[in-house]
Amino acid sequence: MKLKVKFLKWQAGLPVAMLHYKTAEKLGVHLQGTISIKTMSRHPKEMHTIIDTIDEHYVKESEILVTSEIREGMKLSRGQYVDVNLSPTPETLNFIKEKMNGKILSREKIGAIVRDIVNNSLSEAETAFFIASMYKSGMTTKETIDMIESMLKYGDKFILKNKFVVDKHSIGGVAGNRTTPIIVSICAAGGLIFPKTSSRAITSAAGTADVIEAVAKVEFKKSELKKIIKKTGAFMVWGGSLGMVPADEKIIKVEKMLKIDPKSQLLASIMAKKFAVGSRYILIDIPYGKSVKVNYERALELKKEFEKLGRHFRKKIKCVLTDGSQPIGNGVGPVLELKDILGVLDPNKKSPVDLEKKSLYLAGEIFDLSGKTKKGEGVNLAEKILYSGSAFQKFKDIIAAQEGNLKALKKTAKFKKDIKAKQSLTISEIDNKKINSLARIAGCPVDKLSGLYIYSHVGEVVEKGKNIITIYAETPSRLSQAVKFYYSEKPITFK
Amino acid sequence: MKLKVKFLKWQAGLPVAMLHYKTAEKLGVHLQGTISIKTMSRHPKEMHTIIDTIDEHYVKESEILVTSEIREGMKLSRGQYVDVNLSPTPETLNFIKEKMNGKILSREKIGAIVRDIVNNSLSEAETAFFIASMYKSGMTTKETIDMIESMLKYGDKFILKNKFVVDKHSIGGVAGNRTTPIIVSICAAGGLIFPKTSSRAITSAAGTADVIEAVAKVEFKKSELKKIIKKTGAFMVWGGSLGMVPADEKIIKVEKMLKIDPKSQLLASIMAKKFAVGSRYILIDIPYGKSVKVNYERALELKKEFEKLGRHFRKKIKCVLTDGSQPIGNGVGPVLELKDILGVLDPNKKSPVDLEKKSLYLAGEIFDLSGKTKKGEGVNLAEKILYSGSAFQKFKDIIAAQEGNLKALKKTAKFKKDIKAKQSLTISEIDNKKINSLARIAGCPVDKLSGLYIYSHVGEVVEKGKNIITIYAETPSRLSQAVKFYYSEKPITFK
Repeated sequence: MKLKVKFLKWQAGLPVAMLHYKTAEKLGVHLQGTISIKTMSRHPKEMHTIIDTIDEHYVKESEILVTSEIREGMKLSRGQYVDVNLSPTPETLNFIKEKMNGKILSREKIGAIVRDIVNNSLSEAETAFFIASMYKSGMTTKETIDMIESMLKYGDKFILKNKFVVDKHSIGGVAGNRTTPIIVSICAAGGLIFPKTSSRAITSAAGTADVIEAVAKVEFKKSELKKIIKKTGAFMVWGGSLGMVPADEKIIKVEKMLKIDPKSQLLASIMAKKFAVGSRYILIDIPYGKSVKVNYERALELKKEFEKLGRHFRKKIKCVLTDGSQPIGNGVGPVLELKDILGVLDPNKKSPVDLEKKSLYLAGEIFDLSGKTKKGEGVNLAEKILYSGSAFQKFKDIIAAQEGNLKALKKTAKFKKDIKAKQSLTISEIDNKKINSLARIAGCPVDKLSGLYIYSHVGEVVEKGKNIITIYAETPSRLSQAVKFYYSEKPITFK
Repeated sequence: MKLKVKFLKWQAGLPVAMLHYKTAEKLGVHLQGTISIKTMSRHPKEMHTIIDTIDEHYVKESEILVTSEIREGMKLSRGQYVDVNLSPTPETLNFIKEKMNGKILSREKIGAIVRDIVNNSLSEAETAFFIASMYKSGMTTKETIDMIESMLKYGDKFILKNKFVVDKHSIGGVAGNRTTPIIVSICAAGGLIFPKTSSRAITSAAGTADVIEAVAKVEFKKSELKKIIKKTGAFMVWGGSLGMVPADEKIIKVEKMLKIDPKSQLLASIMAKKFAVGSRYILIDIPYGKSVKVNYERALELKKEFEKLGRHFRKKIKCVLTDGSQPIGNGVGPVLELKDILGVLDPNKKSPVDLEKKSLYLAGEIFDLSGKTKKGEGVNLAEKILYSGSAFQKFKDIIAAQEGNLKALKKTAKFKKDIKAKQSLTISEIDNKKINSLARIAGCPVDKLSGLYIYSHVGEVVEKGKNIITIYAETPSRLSQAVKFYYSEKPITFK
């Protein structure tokens, strides 16, 4: 059925279309049913979407009203005609059910599921079932490889030909563990090529993309990224914006709801994103501990699986297991973490020592892995670059190339609450999961200035009347909910 | 924040609200975030909902636009003020994650999940994770009991004091197996009280509620139902309309997407609905076979679990295992099944023999179970009532009491396709699952006239040139998709 496209500034966070109820009737589509929208050009773009219905004051029978998400996803113009049809129930629902029942899926079935996630034939609830099925039944290495290849197939590549294209990834879960901007700056200053795409936070208070977004753009076209990397040797952007691995971005959005991350999807997600930018040398940081994603045994398992995938795809992958027993640095939240990063990068500022040490270690490992330095010498090169201020200069160059500036660092959130020690206390534990939840309740990662400042680490003493933690939020309701959560959940405990 | 309620004829199939983007900003709520809407009365009603944002042409900063689903759910009036606040991330997400990880949930945690599903704090994707977690980890009998009690707690009861309140349920999966209206009519004509609430189809082409809805109303207030039961001794309505077990209706809506039905939820769903109407004697029909929900072993398992729950809740529950190897009757789809039902009920019409036989057997079991007849004699009473025409009269009385009439039975769907045998063929198998999928693609259960007519059963011969099956649909696109599915999936196979 030919319909005329109409827009409002309607944002739903996902693709939705509104039809006049009579149009819906004619199409034979029921509420929450799915339609396909196809452009009328020679190489049509197609997208699937759920529908709402409304009366003629808003949409005529000959029209279709779409959310901003569809307008942008399909690059539609006002008044353009599109071909609208009923979508059949996706057969991939049967494949998801098979996986839920513990079957091993073929390459074709995995490919079809990934395709339907990308073109929106599967709803968020249906995608949730797929994630749960991977979580329940696991995936074989073969299935994980098929998943990686499918995600790359229904995506886009960005291949850099340089010999020294490197990458890093942290499994995450450690609050405040924002080593990436430091490592990228050191490595790029040392001559490596570092096309860093990051995701937004899944389980933590902020992802690297959320952090960088507080001071610079993180969404660029491929042509723009090529210019940035030519100029500075690196970029730090949101992987989703490139549309390189759209399946992954959609899956992550649903994973966020329950903060789960099935192992096979975690492996596939990381690998697909690295391969999409043509990285040859990849360092994976796997923090282990009781309040992060993995314990020591699971960390070793992951290491093995990453190395197996590295061999299959002929990439040099190294995994390092690091201490994830407590948050790193002092700030938790986009801008608060940036302040810590500047502390490390700027030779004239005081660093959070733990953040500096870990960043130097990981940067050193990357130098060694890439062959820039002999085994064991990378960390010396990293120190030299950091202490000379050239990493700081590189960071500022990258931020400038990404059309940013460091002004946001001067701002603070509108509301805050200091939590003070009523007596002298020694910290016995800081729970990463609870710290991340606390920061999210305060508004992270969307409210850039929100978050936490943790004054001391495990084993340190907080004197009577001194601050234990400060909570920052942009609205009173978020602040009060966060304070309530702090007292009920006790993310920081004392001896 | 106090906001003024605005309506359009906006239907989304689920509760959604639209806010001006500045209002959303002030509240601190992000896209797809959740807000709570509370009425300002002394006993406030509260509902949680996801939000979209739009500009001031549609919603002013001081307004909130809500879908029909919220308007009706909260009984709001135009221009009324409501209190709108940010919803905290529901802590029940953690409980769902625990279940996903195989933990046994406490009564309190199960209660909280059910509460959050009912008041809409959990989204459909989050509910999908809960269903998947039950599917993955199973539930103990204790958890199932807690689930039943929670569903009853966050719902409503309808207790009939009569001694002979009976009920029946079929596990389903057998296409065309529409025994309920026949059984209810026979039993009510025989003096039993039969307050039958049915759900809409989950995995099949039609549920009893979908079928009855083709000729009568299936949504009534409790006070109206009391009048109907006083007049006729029975009703056949959609359980969801009573709001008696709202948790169950919401869960079923999401289960439908993947057509899965975890065992614990299946048990809890059935039991909660029966207990909510005060049934004392409950017959459960468990069809087993290779293309229905359960095989013989699983059927025996279910029987045991139902009987265990019956003992716990002090109800007389009997389970019968029946043949589910192929569809029953000829019609599949709301109106097409009704035509079969009339064939059985009307002494002047030719019945589908299999449907008649099964209905008589089950009605007889209910007479025996309730003590109306001595063990083994129920089926004779059932036959007497059916053949005398008094069950048919009772059926017409119930339909009339539910403000219906049998006119719809004279209509047929706008489009149809006869599929004929190209040579003489003996049917070797009819796959229930594929038949149900085929009927759903044709438009079932929403398009009441759509569906299938299957001319012969397993072992019978279809002569050359005669019809094997007729597919009925209300739109050409649904018909062509169904025909395509028929040829690719071959729901009927031949020797």
